[in-house]
Amino acid sequence: MNTQHLVRRLVKATPSKIVFLILDGLGGFRGAGRQQSELEAARLPHLDALAAASSCGLSDPIAPGITPGSGPSHLALFGYDPVEHDIGRGLLSALGVDFPLQPSDLAARMNYCTVRDGLVTDRRAGRVPTAECARLCRMLAKVEIAGVEVFVQPEQEHRAALILRGEGLDDHLTDSDPQVTCKAPLRVQALEAQAERAATIVNEFVRQAGMILKDERPANMVLLRGFARYHPIPSMQELYRLNPACIAVYPMYKGVTRLIGMKVLETGPSLGEEVATLETHWQEHDFFYLHVKKTDSAGEDGNFDAKVAVLEEVDGLLGRILGLRPEVLVITGDHSTPSALKGHSWHPVPVLMHGRWCWPDEVRSFTELAFSRGCLGRLRATDIMPLALASAEKLAKYGA
Amino acid sequence: MNTQHLVRRLVKATPSKIVFLILDGLGGFRGAGRQQSELEAARLPHLDALAAASSCGLSDPIAPGITPGSGPSHLALFGYDPVEHDIGRGLLSALGVDFPLQPSDLAARMNYCTVRDGLVTDRRAGRVPTAECARLCRMLAKVEIAGVEVFVQPEQEHRAALILRGEGLDDHLTDSDPQVTCKAPLRVQALEAQAERAATIVNEFVRQAGMILKDERPANMVLLRGFARYHPIPSMQELYRLNPACIAVYPMYKGVTRLIGMKVLETGPSLGEEVATLETHWQEHDFFYLHVKKTDSAGEDGNFDAKVAVLEEVDGLLGRILGLRPEVLVITGDHSTPSALKGHSWHPVPVLMHGRWCWPDEVRSFTELAFSRGCLGRLRATDIMPLALASAEKLAKYGA
Repeated sequence: MNTQHLVRRLVKATPSKIVFLILDGLGGFRGAGRQQSELEAARLPHLDALAAASSCGLSDPIAPGITPGSGPSHLALFGYDPVEHDIGRGLLSALGVDFPLQPSDLAARMNYCTVRDGLVTDRRAGRVPTAECARLCRMLAKVEIAGVEVFVQPEQEHRAALILRGEGLDDHLTDSDPQVTCKAPLRVQALEAQAERAATIVNEFVRQAGMILKDERPANMVLLRGFARYHPIPSMQELYRLNPACIAVYPMYKGVTRLIGMKVLETGPSLGEEVATLETHWQEHDFFYLHVKKTDSAGEDGNFDAKVAVLEEVDGLLGRILGLRPEVLVITGDHSTPSALKGHSWHPVPVLMHGRWCWPDEVRSFTELAFSRGCLGRLRATDIMPLALASAEKLAKYGA
Repeated sequence: MNTQHLVRRLVKATPSKIVFLILDGLGGFRGAGRQQSELEAARLPHLDALAAASSCGLSDPIAPGITPGSGPSHLALFGYDPVEHDIGRGLLSALGVDFPLQPSDLAARMNYCTVRDGLVTDRRAGRVPTAECARLCRMLAKVEIAGVEVFVQPEQEHRAALILRGEGLDDHLTDSDPQVTCKAPLRVQALEAQAERAATIVNEFVRQAGMILKDERPANMVLLRGFARYHPIPSMQELYRLNPACIAVYPMYKGVTRLIGMKVLETGPSLGEEVATLETHWQEHDFFYLHVKKTDSAGEDGNFDAKVAVLEEVDGLLGRILGLRPEVLVITGDHSTPSALKGHSWHPVPVLMHGRWCWPDEVRSFTELAFSRGCLGRLRATDIMPLALASAEKLAKYGA
């Protein structure tokens, strides 16, 4: 049972403040010759002490066994059913570059790539610099398709977002990205009859892009994936009567939180700067999402020691967050990224909830296994938001 | 997933007996300067010993973060989805006084109150004695509204139930109770167009009641809230093939259990008398709900020591219940009422299940935190009934 509709009925606006400190890819794993997980290896005196004074548990981002991408796992953290709100990768790309989407816009994630003799030889065109990506995007402004407005927005390195604006552009489309090299880019196909027109338009875009880029090196073609139409979803203001803010560095996290009504605060790239942004804007909001990306990047790179180092850096900054005295502080991840697996995984994620009305349990260290014996038990990620609102005394009683 | 429909298909009538000992508001909290919760402070040798021989866990009455009223939390205990069966306060009041409701009856909870110069000065009219309440209810029998039968039934002290019987009385209505003093009683409004007729009728009732009571002191007006129409819900006989009985002192608990087919047994007001009623009727039923109210009342009053005393009283009576040798004994609460919070809360509730087929786990004391490490883990309250039926060997296999 997703209780978001109940929470919406019961929620009250109050001055109490909630902070979600989200360590991307937080959960790790013992393995690849190591006797400890990243959390077990790290020295985390402040997180351990906080665990001893908090309610702890493990959460499944979507459901047991499901490895999530960052889009659905973040929606779940904020209480949105991540299957009901199945927003595509393309939409997240467009939101991440702050593109002002309109209802019915069709978006896709785009890579610049290298093709030779019609076959993809590098899906990322050697990770072209972001400035070069921007130049290529400007070139693609020349694409002309009758009845459709075309927007091509640079992201980082080889990444860009394609947005097509027009009537009836359905998103039931296959990708053009073959996902492997030594294959030709795929023709985009309609998965349902109503997407035939969109497929034709997208393939025309690809054809013109190929013509425009044909003499460029190394980026002489585009690959498209994650077609998605924009369906507005209810904001956190509407659902929870919150005035929420996002502190994040990477575009996609800004995009997904903007989608649910968060104000994206300007911040610098370091963790210390993110915490400084929290301090600066403390009086202006009652909900803060503070995103730590590097735990995930280190895990993706299979860099155990780098992930340990990021965890220890977060530990060192904890005092500044606690110093603001939020009524409720939640520390968790959007999913696990064990460095042993070099990618996202399905393992449940430690979740800590600290506040006046959170039982302190007998967990004494901030690790996966210790948290498996915490009083929160094993939750779904969508339960975290209602619990945080309750603990901040923002939910009225249900029924007499 | 609510499994009630599955259980209904699989259940068998057997002679085995199940007892639900429900300590209202059981869960407590360490806080308000105390290092222990009420359960931690209480001396509970018999409950501790039983925990050591039982399966233990924590249950969320509705869902994590949701604070329930007693109506929905009791329905959940008996396996009914408390959101699907959203019965209003008025209905519970009418059922609590044993009023023979008919489909389409519209009921409301009524308070006698004091108004002066049109403003409410006491929402409970000084808690008038029950006999006075009964006299006032007889006076209101004079109300006459064309096309509608009016019933006014006394509850306890200033509390009464109003039942209106007639065609098309929709329950999408606002309350007349302003919930605070120094305001005038509110005009009842229709929340949907189909409730306009009901709103007119209810406001006419209030007008006539005000005329009839105008020279009374202190109760010279009525306040109405929780309008609800009667929608019959399937009984425990139909769903579980049980012959269930209720042993409770307070009207609302009798009302909600009568709604699902329980026979309400006559009993005295003390815990000892309730247990004696269980003993007397032991041969007549295969399911008993025994309700302990005072754990909740003490919690609501913020009286830590009184709650501890009630818990210890229950502990002293446990031997008599076990002496009857029920096949399954469930001990839990309908929700938490920590005395530190002086009200219901969202915290999960200890649940103990004892019987031949219940794993004894490593829990050795009847406390919230000890139960968080029990083998039942963290349940939804609606899971308790299927588990109890299974443990009593009343559920057949699902599928071949």
